Amino acid sequence: MSQETPLVGIIMGSKSDMPAMEPCMEQLDAWGIPYEVKVASAHRKPAEVHDWASGAHERGMRVIVAAAGKAAHLGGVVAAYTPLPVIAVPMKTSDLGGLDSLLSMVQMPSGVPVACVAINGAKNAAILATQIMGTGDAALQQKIIDFKREMAEA
Amino acid sequence: MSQETPLVGIIMGSKSDMPAMEPCMEQLDAWGIPYEVKVASAHRKPAEVHDWASGAHERGMRVIVAAAGKAAHLGGVVAAYTPLPVIAVPMKTSDLGGLDSLLSMVQMPSGVPVACVAINGAKNAAILATQIMGTGDAALQQKIIDFKREMAEA
Amino acid sequence: MSQETPLVGIIMGSKSDMPAMEPCMEQLDAWGIPYEVKVASAHRKPAEVHDWASGAHERGMRVIVAAAGKAAHLGGVVAAYTPLPVIAVPMKTSDLGGLDSLLSMVQMPSGVPVACVAINGAKNAAILATQIMGTGDAALQQKIIDFKREMAEA
Amino acid sequence: MSQETPLVGIIMGSKSDMPAMEPCMEQLDAWGIPYEVKVASAHRKPAEVHDWASGAHERGMRVIVAAAGKAAHLGGVVAAYTPLPVIAVPMKTSDLGGLDSLLSMVQMPSGVPVACVAINGAKNAAILATQIMGTGDAALQQKIIDFKREMAEA
Amino acid sequence: MSQETPLVGIIMGSKSDMPAMEPCMEQLDAWGIPYEVKVASAHRKPAEVHDWASGAHERGMRVIVAAAGKAAHLGGVVAAYTPLPVIAVPMKTSDLGGLDSLLSMVQMPSGVPVACVAINGAKNAAILATQIMGTGDAALQQKIIDFKREMAEA
Amino acid sequence: MSQETPLVGIIMGSKSDMPAMEPCMEQLDAWGIPYEVKVASAHRKPAEVHDWASGAHERGMRVIVAAAGKAAHLGGVVAAYTPLPVIAVPMKTSDLGGLDSLLSMVQMPSGVPVACVAINGAKNAAILATQIMGTGDAALQQKIIDFKREMAEA
Amino acid sequence: MSQETPLVGIIMGSKSDMPAMEPCMEQLDAWGIPYEVKVASAHRKPAEVHDWASGAHERGMRVIVAAAGKAAHLGGVVAAYTPLPVIAVPMKTSDLGGLDSLLSMVQMPSGVPVACVAINGAKNAAILATQIMGTGDAALQQKIIDFKREMAEA
Amino acid sequence: MSQETPLVGIIMGSKSDMPAMEPCMEQLDAWGIPYEVKVASAHRKPAEVHDWASGAHERGMRVIVAAAGKAAHLGGVVAAYTPLPVIAVPMKTSDLGGLDSLLSMVQMPSGVPVACVAINGAKNAAILATQIMGTGDAALQQKIIDFKREMAEA
Repeated sequence: MSQETPLVGIIMGSKSDMPAMEPCMEQLDAWGIPYEVKVASAHRKPAEVHDWASGAHERGMRVIVAAAGKAAHLGGVVAAYTPLPVIAVPMKTSDLGGLDSLLSMVQMPSGVPVACVAINGAKNAAILATQIMGTGDAALQQKIIDFKREMAEA
Repeated sequence: MSQETPLVGIIMGSKSDMPAMEPCMEQLDAWGIPYEVKVASAHRKPAEVHDWASGAHERGMRVIVAAAGKAAHLGGVVAAYTPLPVIAVPMKTSDLGGLDSLLSMVQMPSGVPVACVAINGAKNAAILATQIMGTGDAALQQKIIDFKREMAEA
Repeated sequence: MSQETPLVGIIMGSKSDMPAMEPCMEQLDAWGIPYEVKVASAHRKPAEVHDWASGAHERGMRVIVAAAGKAAHLGGVVAAYTPLPVIAVPMKTSDLGGLDSLLSMVQMPSGVPVACVAINGAKNAAILATQIMGTGDAALQQKIIDFKREMAEA
Repeated sequence: MSQETPLVGIIMGSKSDMPAMEPCMEQLDAWGIPYEVKVASAHRKPAEVHDWASGAHERGMRVIVAAAGKAAHLGGVVAAYTPLPVIAVPMKTSDLGGLDSLLSMVQMPSGVPVACVAINGAKNAAILATQIMGTGDAALQQKIIDFKREMAEA
Repeated sequence: MSQETPLVGIIMGSKSDMPAMEPCMEQLDAWGIPYEVKVASAHRKPAEVHDWASGAHERGMRVIVAAAGKAAHLGGVVAAYTPLPVIAVPMKTSDLGGLDSLLSMVQMPSGVPVACVAINGAKNAAILATQIMGTGDAALQQKIIDFKREMAEA
Repeated sequence: MSQETPLVGIIMGSKSDMPAMEPCMEQLDAWGIPYEVKVASAHRKPAEVHDWASGAHERGMRVIVAAAGKAAHLGGVVAAYTPLPVIAVPMKTSDLGGLDSLLSMVQMPSGVPVACVAINGAKNAAILATQIMGTGDAALQQKIIDFKREMAEA
Repeated sequence: MSQETPLVGIIMGSKSDMPAMEPCMEQLDAWGIPYEVKVASAHRKPAEVHDWASGAHERGMRVIVAAAGKAAHLGGVVAAYTPLPVIAVPMKTSDLGGLDSLLSMVQMPSGVPVACVAINGAKNAAILATQIMGTGDAALQQKIIDFKREMAEA
Repeated sequence: MSQETPLVGIIMGSKSDMPAMEPCMEQLDAWGIPYEVKVASAHRKPAEVHDWASGAHERGMRVIVAAAGKAAHLGGVVAAYTPLPVIAVPMKTSDLGGLDSLLSMVQMPSGVPVACVAINGAKNAAILATQIMGTGDAALQQKIIDFKREMAEA
């Protein structure tokens, strides 16, 4: 597994989502999984999101993590552009607690799924990304097996 | 007001939204306002939505009506591509009653608004579109004034 | 575009809504769009709201922005009195987070729409007002086009 | 108690609310309490609602029952115009089950209360109207005492 | 109107509800309406609630205000015991914001209504109580007429 | 275990709750556990509920099952009167799906718990009642052990 | 009643649930009821939960209290392994207020009930556990009778 | 890709979930992806679920799809036992529309994610499973690329 090419692309709708997403980056760092972070709103920078997402699989990425809040379209918009699996992280919101982000992320119509995790579930997004890549990479699957054993023994 | 060029672009995420949207077309017909209907999912046909929406204002359209259900991104996606005002019609859903569609439509982040009407509020979308165009078109504003007087006298 | 006559009328149900609505005024100021601010509750001052709203279009206004919380009737009440498009801004509430304001605003019955934006979506109300006026005013539409380009390039 | 003058004014936003409101009229009939029924939307016929409501207490009415659905402003709008107590009956809706009507009715801001009963609580509106009038009318209070005893013995 | 006999009985489920209910007492004080305050939980002190509520109308009370939170049964329990109208004030809760209190109060089954006001709507409970008593007391109705005029002129 | 004395008291707020509660009676019948069924609304027949519930433990009952809908106070009211554990079954409602019943049942304030099962969870109420009695009755606990094994092997 | 063998097993999904659960332990202490506390997540330590829960009834426990938040499976998972009654305490969550925990706990499918108390209802869990054990233990039932009398007299 | 070994394990909590899950099997059939279907409730058959899930990755499976309703723990329980990625399909429920299933599935605590799709999102579960396996299998990724192109051209 080369460290040079990012395997996970993390995109978030706003710089304000960064603190909530840090546990995602930390977990990937802990496992030595190279990733790339992109901040771009699906609504404010649609062309930039399009370009970043539609070429991701050709740049060597295997999984995308998309975090956004409110009418959180980023997961679905990215999923429309890429054949890669897209993990959606609905951001907690100050008014509705994230119920808006959650429903905007998870209730995707037929044909274009996203893999939604819990509201602010950044660390779980990293774990899920690793599980996903582990379906074709025994070393990564072993990391998950070890991680689960360590949790059980903690 | 020429009948040839559509002033209102109606886009919906799925053919199954058509019956719920008929009151929109009927109201526009009643007022003789030319419109165009497009069926294209933001998720399944992102390029087609992009092309249709990003050029709408140059094709002479003045308002867009976007109807979609569940994680209803169509309103926001179209709004990202066009300077025109976008009226969003959240579709009723069979599981959550349309609360998912509503929150996915109305809770747009700062910078890219949509004008959301009620769940399945197709007729109101047509009225609102006409009110909007009426801000720059006295004949259309008069239609609204007459319509309101007729309602009051009905 | 004369600076003398307000084009946008901003009405809010309570002085306590003012801080949440400031981004609306700031955006209109940034674009040099003249507006008028009115504080009057639909329930406590119904006659004042009636008089202000029913004559708005004759005083030269083109769009109304109505902000209110809880059983937020202001948007609908104003919409009942005016042929102008009414943008509703549901205010966040301390108990239900604004879900009450949102449903009270957005779920308007057939015949009298409002254009609802997100909970506390004050800045978006200003942008939407400008988009709406831009349907009949090329200079305003250009402001939106420029604004969207600047966002994309930010 | 004269049969000639209606004591209770029942107003509903739409003719379609009539079947759901029938238990209200039946209960008042059963107790021989004269009432008046008015169908007028707060949004479609605001002047008619204003005229009917603002003079109600001078026409001899003692209580108003207002039934409406969706963004159900009728209760609050009527309460703005009258010193009489206003009982609000939120109508069940086909999409959100009446949660929208309920919150639009019950969450009235400070200064202008309504007395909200359950979703589709038409019979309870009649009972509450009678309890309210019973605070100043021993014969009506006795009807309630008898009614409660009969329920307990049924 | 004698100051000696309380006309309004205010009951709350817990001493912790007292601060939220103070605007109710203040408004009644402002209008010189005598009231009685009782703290007793429907669940922890059912006999005390029974005794207090079932004799209230014979002690001269005309309206009861019941405030409680969470599974807020106090309004309904009191309404079961008294022929008087019962105004329910659902208390805001720290977890669900008061949605639990609201539904537990307002959704009363057929036969035993309560008159529900907004979450933490203490002042409105006092106003509504006065409107209710005003149906049989011209002096109290006049207070409401004056109050509404003052609000409109404020 | 004598068949003569009911061990479980089943109370429901309305005869209309009977079909939804039948799986409870069927499960108790299947296990030969004697029970008593009572239909009495906490609101319409408060004295009858009081008398039935407050003496239940002295008549030999060990567990009470209370089923009610909407502002479902029956569980809490019965729990206020008896030292026995009270299992609450929130009934599905036609407007809010039973969310109202659920919150009215489960959110009991400190000091007076109920044991809430799922909306319309009638069969589970019977199983839970048996588990509860099984804490002091080895034969009943054995029925649960057998039942769980049969489920696992089915 | 021997102090040596725990009668109540308290299990929580995370150490962070401990402060919210303290009122449970305090109430059991006040009544001299021996209990055991276990911290183990159903998801992170499934084998440990399995072992602890499946043998609980053979170690002399009579009731289990399970506290967890978010997708709170702990109550249901423990209930799957034990014939004992399981009291579920849904933990308040920072985003959805505990609605997620509540629905994950209370909506158990047919065959495997849990006895759900209010969100963060730790003290009530202890009272309910005692009521449950009181069905087969007159001394414990007497504690509940005394406790209820003290509450009524407080 | 051998047809003999199932790559996807589909588990559902009840036979009644089968019709809603059929689009999942149909999509996998259409792509010739071998799968295995298992019906076993996490609550009624915990040992069977444990055995099936904990050995899945050693039997050659790469992804698990878990469908369940109400307090839908199946996704989380399976995820606790396996290092494989688990796609959760919350089933629509007759009372709360599936909001209970959704929150029980998606709000997984830190350490053990599931990949949640929409309520009744069976077809999307199949597509997501294929996307996931496509991260390590170019032929499967190509199926997704083709599928997306066909949707776009439909």
